[in-house]
Amino acid sequence: MPDTRSVLAISGGIGGAKLALGLYRILGPNRLSVVANTGDDFEHLGLYVSPDLDTLLYTLAGIGDWERGWGRAEETWTFMHALSVLGGETWFKLGDGDLATHVERTHLLGLGRTLTEVTDQFCQRLGVRARLLPMSDDPVRTQIETRDEVLAFQDYFVRQACTPRVTGFRFHGADDARANPRFIDALAAEDLAAVIICPSNPYLSVDPMLALRGVRDALASARAPVIAVSPIIGGAAVKGPTDKIMQELGVPKTQDSIASHYEGLLDGFVFDRKDIAIREAIAVPTLCTNTLMSTLADRDRLAGEVLNFAEQLRSETVK
Amino acid sequence: MPDTRSVLAISGGIGGAKLALGLYRILGPNRLSVVANTGDDFEHLGLYVSPDLDTLLYTLAGIGDWERGWGRAEETWTFMHALSVLGGETWFKLGDGDLATHVERTHLLGLGRTLTEVTDQFCQRLGVRARLLPMSDDPVRTQIETRDEVLAFQDYFVRQACTPRVTGFRFHGADDARANPRFIDALAAEDLAAVIICPSNPYLSVDPMLALRGVRDALASARAPVIAVSPIIGGAAVKGPTDKIMQELGVPKTQDSIASHYEGLLDGFVFDRKDIAIREAIAVPTLCTNTLMSTLADRDRLAGEVLNFAEQLRSETVK
Repeated sequence: MPDTRSVLAISGGIGGAKLALGLYRILGPNRLSVVANTGDDFEHLGLYVSPDLDTLLYTLAGIGDWERGWGRAEETWTFMHALSVLGGETWFKLGDGDLATHVERTHLLGLGRTLTEVTDQFCQRLGVRARLLPMSDDPVRTQIETRDEVLAFQDYFVRQACTPRVTGFRFHGADDARANPRFIDALAAEDLAAVIICPSNPYLSVDPMLALRGVRDALASARAPVIAVSPIIGGAAVKGPTDKIMQELGVPKTQDSIASHYEGLLDGFVFDRKDIAIREAIAVPTLCTNTLMSTLADRDRLAGEVLNFAEQLRSETVK
Repeated sequence: MPDTRSVLAISGGIGGAKLALGLYRILGPNRLSVVANTGDDFEHLGLYVSPDLDTLLYTLAGIGDWERGWGRAEETWTFMHALSVLGGETWFKLGDGDLATHVERTHLLGLGRTLTEVTDQFCQRLGVRARLLPMSDDPVRTQIETRDEVLAFQDYFVRQACTPRVTGFRFHGADDARANPRFIDALAAEDLAAVIICPSNPYLSVDPMLALRGVRDALASARAPVIAVSPIIGGAAVKGPTDKIMQELGVPKTQDSIASHYEGLLDGFVFDRKDIAIREAIAVPTLCTNTLMSTLADRDRLAGEVLNFAEQLRSETVK
């Protein structure tokens, strides 16, 4: 009998989307839910832009750009060039095809549709047979604390290319935002086989979700093992500023720092073979494997290993 | 001494823009003002679209598409294709480069800039050294009356391809809208050499401007001859539904119908040689010439002839 149980993945953008794609490919249609961080969302040129949601959408739909990791493949840039000539802001790159997502979503939100509903429509139209869910339909905006000022996420991340020295984070609106009910429901599902925290930035991509009321409790009471896959290898982030931020916060750039970051939430932790020496320092069961996902085969392999690890934890532990 | 006097052109989209370009080329920098119809403006996918203003902007900037007459040359259509896949509305074609105009304008209007200010910025950035002016910064929306219903302009013009039988027109908002003060000022300028009503649709493109408070009076008291160039040749419109509308309104499809339409406003009327037989029926002085503008040379030649005609009227008449 084929396995029809559900799996929930929690993901930010590029790194997380790689594993989410592997999970989707291994699990097949209608088994995977992916909850996306929307703390990076912002309004740009009057358009509602949701970078992590879009990276996941394009990746799962098979239309993402393989090299860049964000945006669409076979993209054109006529808009950006014309905008520059007209004197518009060009620090945030919007491809012509990508613009359709932002324009249509902004239009539909303006008509009163929720972000979840719009995402459903886009998934359906693009043939994505995983459930892609924004973490909330309410606005939560990640802000970066530095010694001198508080920066909006995209100001820090794109405009200033993560250069400012970070002292902390704020998730503006998280106190009032309601976690996506489908997210909470998915965590409570009887057929849930695994919860996988994808190799995303813990501070910028995962913490905004954990900051939503009810999410930590729902994770704790889920009937499936909760497994985090580390986004760092040998003390360095595969992509993005995770290691730089750890350094600035005075956190050792080690796997046990990542595992400790999720303390109390995890049933298992997956990290790279390069860091095997630190295995003993980690308080939860571990899977030590190759976590670098360069090829599509890497994504499939790691996804399969993580799912097997979840099965193993399930059979060993009675939660 | 070079002639530095000013000229004002009143124009709709494609047909009018052809003559406006000829005038701009003949007059050189800083002498021509072109007032654009904004009755066709509408909000589409949440973007403020101003078709006539854009056609004039692209035409005067030398970046318009020569074949289509609207939109930009060397345009790409990635957005439109992606929008279609996402389930968005595709009846109104938006090129990728064209989108920059709509997105940036919508953004700037949202920040409180006026349409006139935004148009100024775009002209400056695109190197247009004519003054391109929206007829008003307030909303005026042309509506098409048919026997059964009243249609929004773009619904009639693009979505239904001018198929419905027209019984009349409404210029919603015209009673409350303020004509662009720079339009009124340009008409009162001491150095004004000519006012030229371009070969645009009288009902759809010129009447919305004439419907604005003060415009007819300002035209009447202008110190320069007011000359209309007819948009029909041999009873047919060069482009667009002018002749079809005349037929539906029961107006004979002749040059004197066009001249009569502007009764009380004109000092001169320009029409095509093909219709020379009707010359006697026209109450104002006429210039009968080749008004079909296929090539760039045609635009220059007709513009030159119209300007000479204005000079001739000026010397003959003491206004």
